[in-house]
Amino acid sequence: MKKYNTIKSTAIYIALLIISLQYSAIAQPQRPNPVMSPDVQADNTVIFRLRAPEAMSVKLGGTMNAGYAQLDMTKNSEGIYEIKIGPLESDMYVYTYNVDGVKTLDPSNNVVVRDGSNIESRLMIPGELTDLFDSQDVSHGNVTSVWYPSPVFGIARRMIVYTPPGYEESSKSYPVLYLLHGGGGDEEAWTSRGRANYILDNLIAQGKAEPMIVVMPNGSIGHPAAPNERSYSADTQTTNAMDFNSMNSGKYEESLANDIIPFIEKNYRVIKDADHRALAGLSMGGLHVTNTFMAHPDWFAYINVMSSGWFISDKEMYENGDKRLAEIAPKFNKTVKYLRFTQGGPEDIAYKNGLAMLEVFKKNNVKYEFSEMSGGHSWNVWRKDLKDFAPKLFK
Amino acid sequence: MKKYNTIKSTAIYIALLIISLQYSAIAQPQRPNPVMSPDVQADNTVIFRLRAPEAMSVKLGGTMNAGYAQLDMTKNSEGIYEIKIGPLESDMYVYTYNVDGVKTLDPSNNVVVRDGSNIESRLMIPGELTDLFDSQDVSHGNVTSVWYPSPVFGIARRMIVYTPPGYEESSKSYPVLYLLHGGGGDEEAWTSRGRANYILDNLIAQGKAEPMIVVMPNGSIGHPAAPNERSYSADTQTTNAMDFNSMNSGKYEESLANDIIPFIEKNYRVIKDADHRALAGLSMGGLHVTNTFMAHPDWFAYINVMSSGWFISDKEMYENGDKRLAEIAPKFNKTVKYLRFTQGGPEDIAYKNGLAMLEVFKKNNVKYEFSEMSGGHSWNVWRKDLKDFAPKLFK
Repeated sequence: MKKYNTIKSTAIYIALLIISLQYSAIAQPQRPNPVMSPDVQADNTVIFRLRAPEAMSVKLGGTMNAGYAQLDMTKNSEGIYEIKIGPLESDMYVYTYNVDGVKTLDPSNNVVVRDGSNIESRLMIPGELTDLFDSQDVSHGNVTSVWYPSPVFGIARRMIVYTPPGYEESSKSYPVLYLLHGGGGDEEAWTSRGRANYILDNLIAQGKAEPMIVVMPNGSIGHPAAPNERSYSADTQTTNAMDFNSMNSGKYEESLANDIIPFIEKNYRVIKDADHRALAGLSMGGLHVTNTFMAHPDWFAYINVMSSGWFISDKEMYENGDKRLAEIAPKFNKTVKYLRFTQGGPEDIAYKNGLAMLEVFKKNNVKYEFSEMSGGHSWNVWRKDLKDFAPKLFK
Repeated sequence: MKKYNTIKSTAIYIALLIISLQYSAIAQPQRPNPVMSPDVQADNTVIFRLRAPEAMSVKLGGTMNAGYAQLDMTKNSEGIYEIKIGPLESDMYVYTYNVDGVKTLDPSNNVVVRDGSNIESRLMIPGELTDLFDSQDVSHGNVTSVWYPSPVFGIARRMIVYTPPGYEESSKSYPVLYLLHGGGGDEEAWTSRGRANYILDNLIAQGKAEPMIVVMPNGSIGHPAAPNERSYSADTQTTNAMDFNSMNSGKYEESLANDIIPFIEKNYRVIKDADHRALAGLSMGGLHVTNTFMAHPDWFAYINVMSSGWFISDKEMYENGDKRLAEIAPKFNKTVKYLRFTQGGPEDIAYKNGLAMLEVFKKNNVKYEFSEMSGGHSWNVWRKDLKDFAPKLFK
């Protein structure tokens, strides 16, 4: 570029700036001067602000408030609503404002994360935990959106595949973790809310986790892909609901076993045995995990069932589970090196289901580890859980 | 899964449903019953709805309204604000509500797109054009988030790489289009607002475009990656502004030439000559394009400068450009098979700059094609432009 240095002058960028500001003024809704929000203080208290001089009431909701409680914000003389909360523990939280009864993002914060139809502003409280969730100055794996043919469903479906740093340049084969999301989510949940790719980047960089491929498929049968990635023409644009009929088909587990795993083992350099195959999932994904390893007890040496369990009032589910576990226990115990169940404490709505299910595993002499974490049925638990179990895989 | 069919009963899914509804009720803000929005009618009029019984005023803004005008919505007896607009031409639009002075997404619509700090709800009006933007039942290329080392900046930076259907399975080499975003945007703009990957999927499936790799780097010097992908700890969380000082360095063009193109040519199977290298960009990205091909006149056989031009009051920029074009014209004309300039009509804020710049190209006997489209300085123009120029590449 040396010859051309003169033209790369301030003027170009000033021009651009003027263009951009003009455009902003012409084509976008009138925007007030920016306010700082969220404003994390040195002591990990946080001030949230929203300029809303015309609003009657503004509340702050978020995962940092117990039960996503809506806290009243106070309007100052400049028409800016404010609230200070905390100090908060180091973690990633999501939040929204409620302006005269309508949920809104924080316009001062351009980091938005999504789990299904929950679209929320992100808050990071610095510390050891969020250092692990953060995009650090380490080698990053590639994160790829891949469409794969699903003969089980007769359509193409979308998944996200994390390949560890070095995968593209090397010729070696890697182990694979299949990582499943919960009800209402989609293939983007584990990267958007879950920070799975950055957690793996950091654990691998620290030598704590083996380099592995992580496959994050879409487990919502009603849709082949995340909202912005599926056909708008085949979709009612406003539905956020799960498709109950299609969820009742049991086809997702069939698709995981017959479509997804074979596709990965054909198209990626993976080690194709149980010792190099792990399966984990949360909530609905935990049921997908349980159903899958009970159908294929010699496929996975590493398993994690997160915030899930058989429905406690469904006796048939327990009887069938008991019967099946008795059948598979010898083979399963021989294959599995690490079976983990996690619950987010008694406040996790899957807690009782999970504990009752574990009694059936115990009765059938299936070895497992149970991990109880505080935090409920929430991503705060599941991210920490990924951080804790990924280092135990493939060792 | 056959042996295990009994347990894959309705009960699991009912359990899941109950868990999910419980969770929804416990942990999320209270949500009203869903309303249908946007509700596209058979005649391409659209009804927008927002339940907001407590709001004093709700307005609809969006790119389907000239100048993103804010249109008043009317409250019905159920507390739902409504407006009917159109009929609209087949296209993709983005919109927001304004609730008592605060911009909000449409909570009934879970498709959200982003260009920099503009985070908006998506509207698709069915027709020939949006069929081309849609995720159709054709083979899809992979879309990969890749971090590459940037010796020029001394850090790693993120780009999005589209590999065409068949790339992973084949051993052949492909041509490459480098596709640059505008001021305030980032590496995700061309896939989120631009639908570039689906436009390419569809053009390739129809035999209209050659299979090609599309590289979409981050052209905002102040940040190495999109908001959710860069380090929160190195970033003031609330800044939406461009970094003027760093934009004044001219380093981005240097990084494109010395970091990005060499990285792609080393790590992907690409044909490494000018005939198989294309460069296109919009607004700020158009200046990046112009600066780059003027520094490297024999690198690209296909070029598109979209909604851009030298700042009309900056005489030095024009003098330097004139001088440099005189130097390079013979070599440039020999290399370039297709040079295209696009403007979004006189309402495009870059229109006068672009036309004045073209006079200098004409004076220096540089051959080009000029395309004027109605629609202003907008993604509606740039998406159509990609649809029109991609078929002209590498033929």
